[in-house]
Amino acid sequence: MDVQEFREFGKAAVDYIADYFQTIRDRPVLPSVQPGYLDDLLPKEAPQTGESWQDVLQDVDRIIMPGLTHWHSPNFHAYYPTAHSFPAIVGEMMSAGFGCVGLSWMASPAYTELEVAMMNWLGKMLHLPEEFLNCSEGPGGGVIQGSASEVTFVCLLAAKERKVKELRQINPELTEGDIKGKLIAYSSDQSNSSVEKAGLLGSMPMRLLPADDKGRLTASVLLDAIEKDKAQGLIPCYVVANLGTTPTCAFDDLNDLGPVCNKEQLWLHVDAAYAGTAFSCPEYRHLLNGVEYAESFNFNPHKWMLVNFDCSAMWVKDARYLVEAFNVERIYLKDNHKGLAPEYRHWQISLGRRFRALKLWFVLRMYGVEGIQKHVRNQIALAQYFESLVRSDDRFQVCTSSMGLVCFRLKGDDRLTKNLLEKVHQRRNIYVIPGQFHQRFVIRFAVCSRITERSDIDYAWQEFLSQAEEIVPCSKGDIGEKKGIAAIGLCSAACEKICSEKSK
Amino acid sequence: MDVQEFREFGKAAVDYIADYFQTIRDRPVLPSVQPGYLDDLLPKEAPQTGESWQDVLQDVDRIIMPGLTHWHSPNFHAYYPTAHSFPAIVGEMMSAGFGCVGLSWMASPAYTELEVAMMNWLGKMLHLPEEFLNCSEGPGGGVIQGSASEVTFVCLLAAKERKVKELRQINPELTEGDIKGKLIAYSSDQSNSSVEKAGLLGSMPMRLLPADDKGRLTASVLLDAIEKDKAQGLIPCYVVANLGTTPTCAFDDLNDLGPVCNKEQLWLHVDAAYAGTAFSCPEYRHLLNGVEYAESFNFNPHKWMLVNFDCSAMWVKDARYLVEAFNVERIYLKDNHKGLAPEYRHWQISLGRRFRALKLWFVLRMYGVEGIQKHVRNQIALAQYFESLVRSDDRFQVCTSSMGLVCFRLKGDDRLTKNLLEKVHQRRNIYVIPGQFHQRFVIRFAVCSRITERSDIDYAWQEFLSQAEEIVPCSKGDIGEKKGIAAIGLCSAACEKICSEKSK
Repeated sequence: MDVQEFREFGKAAVDYIADYFQTIRDRPVLPSVQPGYLDDLLPKEAPQTGESWQDVLQDVDRIIMPGLTHWHSPNFHAYYPTAHSFPAIVGEMMSAGFGCVGLSWMASPAYTELEVAMMNWLGKMLHLPEEFLNCSEGPGGGVIQGSASEVTFVCLLAAKERKVKELRQINPELTEGDIKGKLIAYSSDQSNSSVEKAGLLGSMPMRLLPADDKGRLTASVLLDAIEKDKAQGLIPCYVVANLGTTPTCAFDDLNDLGPVCNKEQLWLHVDAAYAGTAFSCPEYRHLLNGVEYAESFNFNPHKWMLVNFDCSAMWVKDARYLVEAFNVERIYLKDNHKGLAPEYRHWQISLGRRFRALKLWFVLRMYGVEGIQKHVRNQIALAQYFESLVRSDDRFQVCTSSMGLVCFRLKGDDRLTKNLLEKVHQRRNIYVIPGQFHQRFVIRFAVCSRITERSDIDYAWQEFLSQAEEIVPCSKGDIGEKKGIAAIGLCSAACEKICSEKSK
Repeated sequence: MDVQEFREFGKAAVDYIADYFQTIRDRPVLPSVQPGYLDDLLPKEAPQTGESWQDVLQDVDRIIMPGLTHWHSPNFHAYYPTAHSFPAIVGEMMSAGFGCVGLSWMASPAYTELEVAMMNWLGKMLHLPEEFLNCSEGPGGGVIQGSASEVTFVCLLAAKERKVKELRQINPELTEGDIKGKLIAYSSDQSNSSVEKAGLLGSMPMRLLPADDKGRLTASVLLDAIEKDKAQGLIPCYVVANLGTTPTCAFDDLNDLGPVCNKEQLWLHVDAAYAGTAFSCPEYRHLLNGVEYAESFNFNPHKWMLVNFDCSAMWVKDARYLVEAFNVERIYLKDNHKGLAPEYRHWQISLGRRFRALKLWFVLRMYGVEGIQKHVRNQIALAQYFESLVRSDDRFQVCTSSMGLVCFRLKGDDRLTKNLLEKVHQRRNIYVIPGQFHQRFVIRFAVCSRITERSDIDYAWQEFLSQAEEIVPCSKGDIGEKKGIAAIGLCSAACEKICSEKSK
């Protein structure tokens, strides 16, 4: 493909994406393909000779599009939002266009330096303590990683490094193996699976301690666990606190946990993967209070901050522990500017690095801080609107509501809610996933797409209502009596509409 | 930014990339900025309100471009090639445009299924043994990872899992900790730093055994190390063989190493990050012989196969060890199609996944197998041409030449070659990096850019010659005598030209 063809293909692809996004609301959010669908549509081997881009682009439409789950459809309410914005898409494309691999400062100074600057911008936007920032005097700093999973793991390794060093200073006769075999980590049972995985990857058992009734890990529970482990000769090392858990978006209280971690010399890592973006709004910043107790902090601009996946922002108070854990220098990587710019390859798992700072820069400049705040506030308002709809119907109960996430269920046996979720899934008009809260089965409803509007929330609620009607009919209709199912209570105005239509 | 603005911005960016690539030959390959250059050019904080894309694109030109090292300049001969092609760039953009996160089959069936198919296409192109392929009956399969670093680490963890399971079956009284603390891994001292890093990350000491005079790890050296470790009560577990080492592109002989690994029940991982693409050419496929002894194999389409970073292809004979090492299931990730399509999140570190299969598909279709073979052969021919130039000048010696990489030096003391490299670096006309071979300092000259031509090789050679002339003048000129430096031998025709010009 020559440059001229690239101009044509690239622009056709831009139009394809634009058209896709303009029609995304009308597409069924979930695909209807079965596992193995692609098998029949593709040749078994790569073609021997090249094909035209026009043919390939047609096949994207024919083969790929039917197998996409439309994460940016306003009817996508599963997981948490994953970021998607036009500035970020163009940033990703230009990064690919330059195609450098930022494995050292010299390998492309702009890669490292824009990342340093963007991590300062982000950190200031969240009012992170100065000592976390690259622009501070000390050994702290920020870096872009690929995911919160990587971050949690990388910080675990740094914590291990620090603990080994600390204990060997006190007891020089201890071997690294003696110490490493006894290290132990903690988080709450509400933490993301990636936290447990970090323990597996790093060979440090991760105790998932019971959260309180608000989904929070408390200092007293943590302290109990620490005491028990110490009594058994284990060495507490690492704590992962959650600001915005995956199941219910619960917030650990850092002012509660932090002093324990500091006193016990545990590395406190704070994971705010989703909710971190909200700390850019003054009204939510208090949830980050106590972060000064932490050694590391992470949130994902690729979740709520409109920067396409992947872009996970991580800060540490002392980057030297990372560098010491990972540094495997070779002659072909030697540079002559040590100390003047960070060598980020020592801060992460891989050697190579994409230019992820570019899309971050594009988003921050083209949205501005106010644009991001507006986006956060809009999504929270939509979630609150959904919550009000759920509360208006007595058959339902809201279990939790926090940020852009509402967890709710049908009152009564879990089977009712499971049944509801199944019905909704089968219709494929909206996409939600299950969760658990206090051992009860709940439906997680997250406001995800950037283009979700109030009418989309109404649409989703109608979807739940219409299916709930089949399970627990509204007492105002006559369907319930016919089916012999006891109606639970008064239902909402929206439900009344369904009832009256059904009664006709 | 609305959709219409995205159309304009996206197309302007396509043109920007196209223009960049059309002028890349004329740009100095290395930037002339100093560490910290960006600090003065950027505000200290993110803007409060959004700015126009036109302003941002202008700033890319003003701020970013001067800080880029042009990896795709035909004067870039450092490291190894990193892939860059127009189909891949558009693939990356469309992947960002769809913006799904492939954390499960249901999260976007096309993501998983295209990856399954592409890993089959690639595996067949390389004539990998059937048992590695997704389309085989057994538990083997291929997956796209972000980097060879990740792969080497992930396979180390799977090897650990397998060894623990194996030993506990024989000795149920052994604890996991007993075993894990004694595991040991091996590779050659020629392996990439990422191999040593994998050992650090996975808490398994990585012995870097001395390679032979051709840069290869031999079975006898490996066996010696294994015996010594076993005698000390350690448990040999994991071997990383290199097909194309980073320093000199040396190839371990898998038919030599493989039987030892099998006999000793070590997990043999084969890393062909750069050279793997060449196995698509029948004349180089023999270098992969013996891969049937391996448990896992990896090469990076993002190096030589024209698929932009990141895209690292990994195959395993038995994926169950990965799944068992990493599986941390949660209710919000449950799916109902188990067994019909792989859940790739259990094959890797992170939970989320980009749609990297798309750019791979674009490249394979638009180049075809023949296009990739042609690219490989062309770059090898250019390296051989460079080698012939070096050999034509008696002041130089070629230390190794393999695939697209030539390592060479000035005869005599290492300081001469170091001096040469320094001078060449200072001029910033070409970019090469140092290496070591047999304890001697060498210059690594790799043919990297897709658009490198014979004239670019001539240009690079002239660059070396002109600077060598200042260090070891050609005996035919009179400059050497004036400076009192002993000339070493006859020089090439190209050098003669310089000499005669200087003598004028």
